[in-house]
Amino acid sequence: MKPSIPKGTRDFSPVEVAKRQYIINTIQSKFELFGFQPIETPSFENSDTLMGKYGEEGDRLIFKILNSGDFLKKVDDTTYSTKDSVQITSKISEKALRYDLTVPFARYVVQHQNEIEFPFKRYQIQPVWRADRPQKGRFREFYQCDADVVGSDSLWQEIEFIKLYDAVFSALNLSGVTVKINNRKILSGIAEVIGASDKLIDFTVALDKLDKIGEDGVKNEMLGKGITEEAIAKMQPLFDFSGDTNEKIEKLKALLHASNEGLKGVEELQFIIQMVNELSLTTVAIDLDVTLARGLNYYTGAIFEVAAPQEVAMGSIGGGGRYDDLTGIFGLKNMSGVGISFGLDRIYLVLEELNLFPDTVADTTKVLFINFGEKESLYCMKGIYQLRNSDIVAELYPDAAKMKKQMTYANRRNIPYVVLAGTKEMNENTFTVKTMETGEQQEMNIEQLSKYLS
Amino acid sequence: MKPSIPKGTRDFSPVEVAKRQYIINTIQSKFELFGFQPIETPSFENSDTLMGKYGEEGDRLIFKILNSGDFLKKVDDTTYSTKDSVQITSKISEKALRYDLTVPFARYVVQHQNEIEFPFKRYQIQPVWRADRPQKGRFREFYQCDADVVGSDSLWQEIEFIKLYDAVFSALNLSGVTVKINNRKILSGIAEVIGASDKLIDFTVALDKLDKIGEDGVKNEMLGKGITEEAIAKMQPLFDFSGDTNEKIEKLKALLHASNEGLKGVEELQFIIQMVNELSLTTVAIDLDVTLARGLNYYTGAIFEVAAPQEVAMGSIGGGGRYDDLTGIFGLKNMSGVGISFGLDRIYLVLEELNLFPDTVADTTKVLFINFGEKESLYCMKGIYQLRNSDIVAELYPDAAKMKKQMTYANRRNIPYVVLAGTKEMNENTFTVKTMETGEQQEMNIEQLSKYLS
Repeated sequence: MKPSIPKGTRDFSPVEVAKRQYIINTIQSKFELFGFQPIETPSFENSDTLMGKYGEEGDRLIFKILNSGDFLKKVDDTTYSTKDSVQITSKISEKALRYDLTVPFARYVVQHQNEIEFPFKRYQIQPVWRADRPQKGRFREFYQCDADVVGSDSLWQEIEFIKLYDAVFSALNLSGVTVKINNRKILSGIAEVIGASDKLIDFTVALDKLDKIGEDGVKNEMLGKGITEEAIAKMQPLFDFSGDTNEKIEKLKALLHASNEGLKGVEELQFIIQMVNELSLTTVAIDLDVTLARGLNYYTGAIFEVAAPQEVAMGSIGGGGRYDDLTGIFGLKNMSGVGISFGLDRIYLVLEELNLFPDTVADTTKVLFINFGEKESLYCMKGIYQLRNSDIVAELYPDAAKMKKQMTYANRRNIPYVVLAGTKEMNENTFTVKTMETGEQQEMNIEQLSKYLS
Repeated sequence: MKPSIPKGTRDFSPVEVAKRQYIINTIQSKFELFGFQPIETPSFENSDTLMGKYGEEGDRLIFKILNSGDFLKKVDDTTYSTKDSVQITSKISEKALRYDLTVPFARYVVQHQNEIEFPFKRYQIQPVWRADRPQKGRFREFYQCDADVVGSDSLWQEIEFIKLYDAVFSALNLSGVTVKINNRKILSGIAEVIGASDKLIDFTVALDKLDKIGEDGVKNEMLGKGITEEAIAKMQPLFDFSGDTNEKIEKLKALLHASNEGLKGVEELQFIIQMVNELSLTTVAIDLDVTLARGLNYYTGAIFEVAAPQEVAMGSIGGGGRYDDLTGIFGLKNMSGVGISFGLDRIYLVLEELNLFPDTVADTTKVLFINFGEKESLYCMKGIYQLRNSDIVAELYPDAAKMKKQMTYANRRNIPYVVLAGTKEMNENTFTVKTMETGEQQEMNIEQLSKYLS
């Protein structure tokens, strides 16, 4: 019986690791260029750090770790007799796997507040785990790549994050990416001016579906949730929300003239968009999208979502926003946070589909030295170490196997050069190098070989 | 109440991440230079992949993950009524956190055997988890850095691994490292010639303690385990085991002349040592240490252990060896494996103690632009993006806070330069740069600034 791995998890082959590493390195280098500093937190946290932070659904999807030793001894008989999984879980499990990077970051900031200089710009690239039903593109173990600033409510942070998205997707040569932007205050303002502030969540959840169910669908859903016809009529401008960004801003100002909060949101958006335009973008486009909601109960200011190029049906490849009270859950008040995330797995699929990984991304060994026996091997090894001194990846085939077997190995591993060194070469202090693609052979000394392969 | 993390786990601050990354990058680049390819495996495996592979003690130390949902429903009432933690564990947990990288690697090789070209040289740098009692330098989550070759019994692999240790410790500028080397066949051979083959484990466990309990201690322990005085007398040469490597080899040959297996081990060692000497080592020394056992029930050929420089009391910072049947546990026979491991945490402590981290290892932001207000900020931001185009890490202080606060921030973060740009500079299209260490100020245009900071 062949061994297997748990569903929703993955093995990564050398080529896959190389491609993932290419994306991660690109993101990481831009994070650092923008002044973000890395932290790492443990894979598991105390359960009470995580539980209750992601809603009821989230609590269910958190992987719990069983206590060590005779864990049932700690369960009193009355509780045990209930055989109630939820109740007993808290008695036999005290730790749980990280569900995202935001809550551990908030915990980190509070725990280490005296060592941190604020504003603190941190990035974190680590796996998270969710007991979600696995499906295409959704895994139980996956990486998150997050950058956040905590301790500054300056809108320059939002501007920097849009520029950061631009820098990363430019470096990945991925054009056609759109950064959609909205502001929670605008959503609140609209709810306010149409008289549906008490139905803010229902209102935004419905509005968020405009893409999928269309204008009539949204209106019907709102009606079903008890939002009045009159209120819905007042928001008609949102359904006719066309024009360039400046026109959209003016329309919003008109719609929201009676809501201070709404106008504040428009003002913030306007500043961000103006400054981004002043600084100019290389690759990504920004799009003011008032239907964008994304975890509304979380964000308090800017909301970002990154759409993959239209030619690939991939949906969101990143997102983020501002949350005014990031660390309040752990007792540190008045710490505004704003951050973005990159969806590694989806970016991988997009680059794969558009054939955007560099040809050299998975290059490994450049030259294989054929093994003709012990004496020849030592001669080859000396050459190999000289090449490695020049950072050329060179290997000896480990056994004096049949020539054909060794050549097949080089071929299958896509090693572009092989070196053959027998008695003749050893006497002349040379190496014969064969280019696999052309079959061409040349004899040269080690310095020439090193230059040839560089 | 301040939040905390589970015992035995760690948060890593930006400086700590940078230092760890420096070590990991060094190891990784040498792995790749030697032709090793990366793989990654899931953090958790099916329990039956891990259980029973590390002995009884290991089984206890494996972190088990609780099944999702109503996990108790699957436990029949009879089993449930036993309240037996061990029995019930297998009913409520099907997954477990990786305990090392070797067993998952063996599982990977068997599962993907048809996609792999053998010999397969893989490296893997990932965290592992053990429910061990935490103590100084021992954690419940820690990284392993492993390189292994599977599918080749060539001794050139052993030679390459010693050279690989040498390459890594040279790159880390860590001198004084010793690679101790032994061979399981020599241990078996000694047990054979003294007539204690049936007590091989007791014999080697005792011998392994020579460093700690001395000659008399070892002899007493052996006597206690039922090894005869006569047998112990025969191994006296091991206690007088001095001289250079060649002399040691000759002594072993004499001692083991009656054991084919022992002589085979000596021969292997001799070849390895000769070839390593031919290829020469830069930093590490090799030391033939016949008392070295390290998980004897596992290794079948070469055994390595890496000792930190004598001036730091750190013990082993790496180790490895050959195991003839790596993948047999998963049903793929006759696959010889050989590998080594680097102990990241201990290497970190050694470099810290010897002050060997490069001064620049945790460098982040090079220049902070002081924020004088909105107009000035935009002017600064344009400069910042030009610097970033030249890969200079530049940041704007996000708010127009008091000068003193902004300068203090730069100081505390060890940012070496600040830029001040007010009306005068904006009119002249310049920036005033201040070197924090000297207080010196200079006014220059952006191209000059970029050069100045590069």
